[in-house]
Amino acid sequence: MIPCPDSRLAAQIAFIVEIDALKSVLRQTLLTDGSRRENDAEHSWHIATMAFVLAEYADAPVDAGRVARMLLIHDIVEIDAGDTFIHDTKGHEDKDAREQAAAKRLYGILPADQAGEFTALWGEFEARETADARFAHSLDRLQPLLHNFETRGGTWTPNHVTADKVRALLPRIEGGSKRLADYARALIDESVRLGYLPEA
Amino acid sequence: MIPCPDSRLAAQIAFIVEIDALKSVLRQTLLTDGSRRENDAEHSWHIATMAFVLAEYADAPVDAGRVARMLLIHDIVEIDAGDTFIHDTKGHEDKDAREQAAAKRLYGILPADQAGEFTALWGEFEARETADARFAHSLDRLQPLLHNFETRGGTWTPNHVTADKVRALLPRIEGGSKRLADYARALIDESVRLGYLPEA
Repeated sequence: MIPCPDSRLAAQIAFIVEIDALKSVLRQTLLTDGSRRENDAEHSWHIATMAFVLAEYADAPVDAGRVARMLLIHDIVEIDAGDTFIHDTKGHEDKDAREQAAAKRLYGILPADQAGEFTALWGEFEARETADARFAHSLDRLQPLLHNFETRGGTWTPNHVTADKVRALLPRIEGGSKRLADYARALIDESVRLGYLPEA
Repeated sequence: MIPCPDSRLAAQIAFIVEIDALKSVLRQTLLTDGSRRENDAEHSWHIATMAFVLAEYADAPVDAGRVARMLLIHDIVEIDAGDTFIHDTKGHEDKDAREQAAAKRLYGILPADQAGEFTALWGEFEARETADARFAHSLDRLQPLLHNFETRGGTWTPNHVTADKVRALLPRIEGGSKRLADYARALIDESVRLGYLPEA
């Protein structure tokens, strides 16, 4: 046990050590060099950084720092609930219940005030109602498209994903940014043209 | 080449794709479960998240969102310059020159205004003069201590690191937070007591 005389700091350090496990939660997405699957921690780093690079394309004004904070903590629930592949219909049936329980346990490691803050921020992300949350979703959905394009259909091919399935994800990007959705649409069309993604 | 009619967005997407390489820059630090070495992208995620959890312990008031932003981008230079092990004296001789060249190339992929912003923020981190930068360094140095403690001396043992070497890093933590430095000092003492770290 890490020595810590102060119970508040002890709880915070316990949380920091616990979330290290996010580095071992694998996503379907491959790194852009195709060498291995991406994990949730590095994915979260990537999209949080994207928030600062792409904030100007949000349709409604967003606080990029707040979007980044939301993205840094939004996947922590997957330490317990696991990553659910976007095209896995069955896995999505009980996703909410699994993630609610995970949020309670994981954010609950923190002192009560911070547990409340983190849970609320995660809930805001999930609800997709605020401008910050909508833009956070745009980034969370755009990034795997870039990876699939760079790896010439890396995740799509083995999972028999077709263009209509990928286009069905566009509204989530469009909810925060029409400009990034237009870009994603062009990327899908180009993926079809290059043979990375079958039309049907 | 990813299709993109707008040269500003094209530059931003090129940067986002380029920095994926940070996920392949390995640090000496092991994950807390000891399973493998940590990479720079997941390390950056971890310490940026720590900024929000531990901001209250900064000696001078900090903007946690800005500290997180700084930490998310501070290691990007290592895509070109590589990670220099903290106890590698020789590697530190030309570290600055290597990192300056890397910053120029990597942040330089972005549109000029953002290249300037990111370079300035990285420069601020390196200079360790502002409250945000000093606290960012506290977190960057505290995190590997937690990992070394959790892995019972994971990086220390194979590299023959002694307690005096680790204590020599305390001023960097203390520069941003006396409280976290006190905690780190206790952690080092406990590591010695448990035999994870030889006194000399």
